Amino acid sequence: MIQGIGASTGIAIGKAFVLPNWEWEVPDQKIDVADFAREFERVYEGIRTSKHEIEQIKDELREVVGSEETNIFDAHLAILDDPVFMNEIQGIIQRQYKAAEVAVKEAIDHFVTMFDLLDDEYMKERALDIKDVGNRLLKHLLGVPEIALPVDTQPFILIAKELSPSQLAHINPDHVLGIVTLVGSTTSHSSIMARALGVPLVVGVEPELKEPIATGQTIVIDGGDGSVYIDPVEAIIDRYNLLHDRQMEDKKKLQHFASRHSVTPDGKALRLEANISSIKELEIALSSGANGVGLFRTEFLYMDRNRFPREEEQFEVYRSVAEKLGGDPLVIRTLDVGGDKQLDYFELPEEDNPFLGYRAIRISLDRTDLFKTQLRAILRASVYGQVKLMYPLISSVDEVRSANRILNEAKLELEQEGLPYDRGMKVGIMIEVPAAVMIADMLAQEVDFFSIGTNDLVQFTLAVDRMNEEISHLYEPFHPALLRMLKLTVEAAKRSGISVGVCGELAGDMRALPIWLSLDVDELSMSAHSILHVKERLLGTKQEESRGLFQQLQLCRTSTEVLEMLESFKGEPKEKTANG
Amino acid sequence: MIQGIGASTGIAIGKAFVLPNWEWEVPDQKIDVADFAREFERVYEGIRTSKHEIEQIKDELREVVGSEETNIFDAHLAILDDPVFMNEIQGIIQRQYKAAEVAVKEAIDHFVTMFDLLDDEYMKERALDIKDVGNRLLKHLLGVPEIALPVDTQPFILIAKELSPSQLAHINPDHVLGIVTLVGSTTSHSSIMARALGVPLVVGVEPELKEPIATGQTIVIDGGDGSVYIDPVEAIIDRYNLLHDRQMEDKKKLQHFASRHSVTPDGKALRLEANISSIKELEIALSSGANGVGLFRTEFLYMDRNRFPREEEQFEVYRSVAEKLGGDPLVIRTLDVGGDKQLDYFELPEEDNPFLGYRAIRISLDRTDLFKTQLRAILRASVYGQVKLMYPLISSVDEVRSANRILNEAKLELEQEGLPYDRGMKVGIMIEVPAAVMIADMLAQEVDFFSIGTNDLVQFTLAVDRMNEEISHLYEPFHPALLRMLKLTVEAAKRSGISVGVCGELAGDMRALPIWLSLDVDELSMSAHSILHVKERLLGTKQEESRGLFQQLQLCRTSTEVLEMLESFKGEPKEKTANG
Repeated sequence: MIQGIGASTGIAIGKAFVLPNWEWEVPDQKIDVADFAREFERVYEGIRTSKHEIEQIKDELREVVGSEETNIFDAHLAILDDPVFMNEIQGIIQRQYKAAEVAVKEAIDHFVTMFDLLDDEYMKERALDIKDVGNRLLKHLLGVPEIALPVDTQPFILIAKELSPSQLAHINPDHVLGIVTLVGSTTSHSSIMARALGVPLVVGVEPELKEPIATGQTIVIDGGDGSVYIDPVEAIIDRYNLLHDRQMEDKKKLQHFASRHSVTPDGKALRLEANISSIKELEIALSSGANGVGLFRTEFLYMDRNRFPREEEQFEVYRSVAEKLGGDPLVIRTLDVGGDKQLDYFELPEEDNPFLGYRAIRISLDRTDLFKTQLRAILRASVYGQVKLMYPLISSVDEVRSANRILNEAKLELEQEGLPYDRGMKVGIMIEVPAAVMIADMLAQEVDFFSIGTNDLVQFTLAVDRMNEEISHLYEPFHPALLRMLKLTVEAAKRSGISVGVCGELAGDMRALPIWLSLDVDELSMSAHSILHVKERLLGTKQEESRGLFQQLQLCRTSTEVLEMLESFKGEPKEKTANG
Repeated sequence: MIQGIGASTGIAIGKAFVLPNWEWEVPDQKIDVADFAREFERVYEGIRTSKHEIEQIKDELREVVGSEETNIFDAHLAILDDPVFMNEIQGIIQRQYKAAEVAVKEAIDHFVTMFDLLDDEYMKERALDIKDVGNRLLKHLLGVPEIALPVDTQPFILIAKELSPSQLAHINPDHVLGIVTLVGSTTSHSSIMARALGVPLVVGVEPELKEPIATGQTIVIDGGDGSVYIDPVEAIIDRYNLLHDRQMEDKKKLQHFASRHSVTPDGKALRLEANISSIKELEIALSSGANGVGLFRTEFLYMDRNRFPREEEQFEVYRSVAEKLGGDPLVIRTLDVGGDKQLDYFELPEEDNPFLGYRAIRISLDRTDLFKTQLRAILRASVYGQVKLMYPLISSVDEVRSANRILNEAKLELEQEGLPYDRGMKVGIMIEVPAAVMIADMLAQEVDFFSIGTNDLVQFTLAVDRMNEEISHLYEPFHPALLRMLKLTVEAAKRSGISVGVCGELAGDMRALPIWLSLDVDELSMSAHSILHVKERLLGTKQEESRGLFQQLQLCRTSTEVLEMLESFKGEPKEKTANG
């Protein structure tokens, strides 16, 4: 038995397939001054092709693992757009008279070595990104084919030195039972993706590995505790087969919950809805028994294309989703770009602090032409289901009024054109800016519902960028300040008699469930993957007991205290906290 | 009479001195491949010298106009550090075989033309910055001297095509009575600086100017309404002499307030203290009758040098300021770098959203070695006056406790070394993160005082970067959410019996005074330039009436309503609001 690091849970038993190294010979071609332009153009062409390919991978993956995990590839796109990377390549071509592929290879080596030298986990991850995307670019310049995994064999266990997100993206979970990599960490992009794909993964076995694993050997891995067996005795295989079956049973049991009504033992019904970013994600949501879509991110309609989507295109998508949901609610959020989300054909200003910048409703109220097109499409779709409209990043009463003014113009236009829309369509706002919490009572009088976006709210309230690794320990969603803000918001909604839900990441965090039950929110909207887990907990958690817990939580002075109390509630298994 | 645009108020009467254009002949020298390295080095050397020079200007200016206005030059430093600028220069050297000065000249022209083409006020300002800093670099490469202003003549009125911040920095207000520029805008860096220097300035007279002004002509300007007279009749000169005298009298009257006790007509005493960023600024503060220093920014001790300041160096500065203040309070804020403030010798990570990043107390708690050195220096200075210690960017009870733990270690060390410190030294925190407002009651039990930092608080609460021109209309310090946060914070402090002040920009905003009186804060700390103005208003504003006003303000739903109410309070003159 070899002890590795468990990076994606699950048990896998099968034959090894050892992946050859993804490295090519690059002949050291010299060029002439006269060739500079041609070689530059080859690099640009390679970058264009690589970007196109990455966008395709993102599209395909999004259907399988959801949009959050595919953000990994945005780092790759950013590298291809980085002038420093391009300058390095051009410099090598110009100063050393080398061909494009040689320059790219040397530039990759240069950055990877540089980042690896810095003894820093984050920088090492960045080095992997550069290597991955650099190899993709190199592949196009050399004209070599992608290394393909066997598809016509038995499903196998993949063995590799290390595995890049690009390589993982091509893995078909039906063919790959599990993965073992010699190096790697649980926090790498590849590990995140393996978890999203649901493929068991053990990393970092190299130190314990005495001789290389060979294709065809029998392998047993446990992605939970990181153990790997090579050609084990029959008894081991039997034991793990048993374990594997038991895990599958648990999974099936969970699936049973899909059809159960989502209500606590003491009768509090709480709608569990899905956050979706594409039509394909809707299927997963429906198969998980979602009670509707609490957050339909419309950004995907605007991405991976070269112009704004027309009213008709949008309408067709909104209508199709509304129809598929039958009578269940569909909350459509208007365009939320800016911040870390960009559109190729819509130049946004370079900003020092994009999270505090020109984004979401701020863009919509500035570009009312685009905004009204979207509103018209949503209004027209509203007759095909229970459609609701939601504005993101609202920070003032003025903004709501301005947005509603444009909505009314859109309605008037439709009336004049004789196009039908639901006159009772509910209009709500995201509560994700601290100012919105502070004036929640005033905002509640302007709208039909609130949806609390915990991700941004935590960021702004704590002044912590959750993507910033340097201060990740300060991103504390269970901070006492947050509990108070949640309480303020929900109470303001209740007093005005409007409904209130939660659609940030915290909605799908099982530890937070007693908080929502105690505050008596109307719905939770989360990643489709979380719905069944949360429902299982909901079916066993009393609202009454949650209320008692919340009384105690309000006395906590630190996140650690809040977390400890939440984790020991009703004998839930202890989980490691983010702020140790 | 010529109608220009008033950019800095005040009347000036005197002889014209016309500034020659700051443009040099750059001979079109060709170079060889073998010279590349030498020319690169010349550019680097020029950049180093330019940066050094800019740092010096910043230092000198800071003493005169305060640190906020000298931030203008940070834009210049950023351009010199910008790889895009450097790449353009190197590219011209390499591809066109041109000497360093030619490459710099062409790079400047390239960027200026590009930015000017964009029909955008902001970009035009950036073009001016590039021109200004580029000319400085060029000056060093050409080895030409700075164009000097006459110093041995009578004070004069300076006439120029346009004036860069660099040129303004060399102006001695004793020699320059006023300035007229042919082009320019009221929002340019130069206009901001002229206002800070207190020099009357009229810009944009070119369209009305029929023939050029000549050195020696008599000029009268009114920087308030933008009128400029060239060789006017005696009656005009007399009228403006009278106006000028009256303005001087008002200024003197204001100075009278310096010695007055800062108290409202109905007896509410409110300490008016100064924010200072250097020892020199202390002098201005004292001459304005400041009741102490409510915010001593210690960053300057760490800037413009190549290593962290030693304990002894810091101690000397803190002691000197404490002594100069006699018994008046001196609130020393621990190091607040990161965000938009960088140190040359302390590599901070590149961050996507630096305002939400690794900064202030977060760095101190991470680099406890540096932190303890500063705490020891402050503790040692505490016996020389009424020194108080303040932590910036606090967002949790944990942070306060961690900081105090290190403070206690420092105290213990000093005791063991037999060094004295004030055992009763008060310890407080900035309230500038929304989370701190939400848990103000808990924080109040951990510290001796609060100081509300309105600048950051507004930014985080509204999710608006105040430096971002694209959304500047959304930076609303009088947002109803803010009023509630201020109230929450002050009330929490009062309930715990600790003192509470305000040290953000809003403290010096006269419109906000009734808010502070109504909330009954203990002190306001502001730019020294604002103290007398605020005191004048304080002497005529009753606390009782302010309370009545605040009752009304709490009913407002928008910033516009709040501002309208504040501006019509007690017949104060109407000012233009930021959010139109």
